[in-house]
Amino acid sequence: MDQPVNQGKPRYRWAKRARDTIAPAVTAHGKLIELGGGYDFPGTLPDVVSEAIAAARSKRETLQYGPLYGLEDLRDAIVDYLRRDGISTARENILVVNGAKHGLDLVCRVFLEPGDLVIVAAPTYLNAVRIFKNAEAHFVSIPQDEEGMDTEILGNRLQARHDAGEPLPKLLFDMPDFHNPTAIAMSAARRQRLVELAKEYDFVIIEDDPYRRVRFGGASVPPIKAFDNDGRVISLGTISKILAPGLRIGWVNADPAIIRRMASHKSDGGTSPLLQRIVVQLFRSGKVDQHVAALSSLLRVHRDAMIDAIREHLPGTSVCAPNGGYFLWVQLPAEIDADELVRRAGNEGVSIISGRLCFAEEPAGSFLRLAYSFSAPDEIAEGVKRLGRAYVAMRSEVGAPTKEASDIDH
Amino acid sequence: MDQPVNQGKPRYRWAKRARDTIAPAVTAHGKLIELGGGYDFPGTLPDVVSEAIAAARSKRETLQYGPLYGLEDLRDAIVDYLRRDGISTARENILVVNGAKHGLDLVCRVFLEPGDLVIVAAPTYLNAVRIFKNAEAHFVSIPQDEEGMDTEILGNRLQARHDAGEPLPKLLFDMPDFHNPTAIAMSAARRQRLVELAKEYDFVIIEDDPYRRVRFGGASVPPIKAFDNDGRVISLGTISKILAPGLRIGWVNADPAIIRRMASHKSDGGTSPLLQRIVVQLFRSGKVDQHVAALSSLLRVHRDAMIDAIREHLPGTSVCAPNGGYFLWVQLPAEIDADELVRRAGNEGVSIISGRLCFAEEPAGSFLRLAYSFSAPDEIAEGVKRLGRAYVAMRSEVGAPTKEASDIDH
Repeated sequence: MDQPVNQGKPRYRWAKRARDTIAPAVTAHGKLIELGGGYDFPGTLPDVVSEAIAAARSKRETLQYGPLYGLEDLRDAIVDYLRRDGISTARENILVVNGAKHGLDLVCRVFLEPGDLVIVAAPTYLNAVRIFKNAEAHFVSIPQDEEGMDTEILGNRLQARHDAGEPLPKLLFDMPDFHNPTAIAMSAARRQRLVELAKEYDFVIIEDDPYRRVRFGGASVPPIKAFDNDGRVISLGTISKILAPGLRIGWVNADPAIIRRMASHKSDGGTSPLLQRIVVQLFRSGKVDQHVAALSSLLRVHRDAMIDAIREHLPGTSVCAPNGGYFLWVQLPAEIDADELVRRAGNEGVSIISGRLCFAEEPAGSFLRLAYSFSAPDEIAEGVKRLGRAYVAMRSEVGAPTKEASDIDH
Repeated sequence: MDQPVNQGKPRYRWAKRARDTIAPAVTAHGKLIELGGGYDFPGTLPDVVSEAIAAARSKRETLQYGPLYGLEDLRDAIVDYLRRDGISTARENILVVNGAKHGLDLVCRVFLEPGDLVIVAAPTYLNAVRIFKNAEAHFVSIPQDEEGMDTEILGNRLQARHDAGEPLPKLLFDMPDFHNPTAIAMSAARRQRLVELAKEYDFVIIEDDPYRRVRFGGASVPPIKAFDNDGRVISLGTISKILAPGLRIGWVNADPAIIRRMASHKSDGGTSPLLQRIVVQLFRSGKVDQHVAALSSLLRVHRDAMIDAIREHLPGTSVCAPNGGYFLWVQLPAEIDADELVRRAGNEGVSIISGRLCFAEEPAGSFLRLAYSFSAPDEIAEGVKRLGRAYVAMRSEVGAPTKEASDIDH
């Protein structure tokens, strides 16, 4: 050929789904007070030194490639752990993954073609939105009330699609216990109804349940998976919120036909057996239960500190006091742009998350997600005070009243 | 609606790419003599107890979520490590991943649409074939000779495609140093030529280089990446073959524009900072270098044991004695079906890999991949003896001569 096909600096032939990262890599170790990310509280991170020593010594297991589906001991420990939630499962239903997000990614691989529909709550988990968008999914967004995703609205939307001959969703994603970001716990009736709708309209439910045991009050109801009798529910679990995110161990509990297909897309050479062996020990010794009990007591204090600070510094906002989880979902007056408030709060020295990121489609209002998990109560108080400065300044610019209560629903 | 859309046990609406796993989960801990998988030799796995203790103690870093791109200390250690190969790179070019396969998977996400073409050697790395097939890629398979992938044939194929107005490949995948499965080391001229062809025909080269330092002899030539001056080469690295696969730490070295897009598809919540901190210490203390030097001396003995056994037990086969890596690539007489031999060898008590798995398209003959990495020399001798029983029985069934030499090229 006479001329090169391409000259100069390459313009890569990306796939359509190749998106640049939105922001540079961030960690919780900056100078801002961190009320954004769902990091674990550093003060209660567990001591895993003895488990790490034992695991490192078993090097013929832990430094070698591990089995594709995970260590049998860990899969069995997960089966035991789930049994206490009323879920009957077995080793062949469990796939060990590198955190629940990894499990969600694998679900997308084996179920979604570009353009397929996924049902999500509005709002929903921001990283799930990112993963579904990376899979080129489209969305059906369903509002929530205090009982969780509104199954009546969902049923009507599905029937209308069916009657109109429109494509039906393949997947539904939700977090029934202390939902991220709203902290809502779904009622048993709604859980049951979701499973019925899944059968009726032939979709699969992804139940992501990291916060179930981070509970301050209220009675627990069984997981959605406990209502499932024909393999339509895929449960995602993780030790990130009950132990430590840095160990990056999660699991999928699903029909073995689903598990096998997910495993064939697991391209990490197996989850690290060193980490798995550490976690097996922590499950067996009871440290997992001890840790989540201590953490829950403590986060209840964090939650209260944040609610007190919101009452003092964010007049005119509305928030529910949750019975568990890591987050508060703060509704702002409609005239306050959440993205702009996040930017200004950063200038004041506090990191928060715009509610806009928690919607797969258009936001249904102006919201913030505030995490009380990582920062200590005094930092939370100072962080919300800083946020309050940015907020009050914005309100005075738009001419809103500066003297009024915030609406806190206990 | 009157009738459920779907009744009875669900038939999942899989994506096209949802393939069942071929085999149940397997490990290297079975009763067969393992000459199949590229496992590390258990006798030289490094002692990482002190590093694990130190990492577990730094829990505010190691048990928390880590940065998306990896720990800065590890990215810097990788930059230093690559510099010794004549590669000039920087922290922003490095993405830490959960093994090189994970990196390859992320490359597929950001470059490939279903049906896109990928250039591979024939034969090539069997897990790369699986990952590319999971990404619904199609293949252009190029033969190898003793200098590596035949760039003249490749150039002709590309020109013919260009002239015919056919789609051109987006990616090329190869392992230039002690190729898996052939153990061939690519010549410098071929490496240079690959980079020229990538510019001319606008594709990106993926250089997977796990075995580069597992060398028994011969002079090393610079990596393909060292010939790249416009960001067309993506290097994949891993500690699996220079340290321990169980730690599941790999990296990608590429143009930052590529790294950022890969990071946005990294759905594992960050690679475990506990594992990363262990590996940082092993790089800094020189243990990585010590380990790979000891391992290479030892694997040379393994290689020789396997070649001696092949000479004794596999008459009529042909094999090259490699200067490095983990594998021997054994050409069988055309009348011996490799898949059937693998099955029969299993019955005799030895696990091996059919060469058929190492071809993206039709195999160019009948081959076995034998790993000398995992088993000790006496096990290798016994394993090849068992394989020989199955092989000789098959040969006698097809009426081939039983007395002849094997062709071993040193």
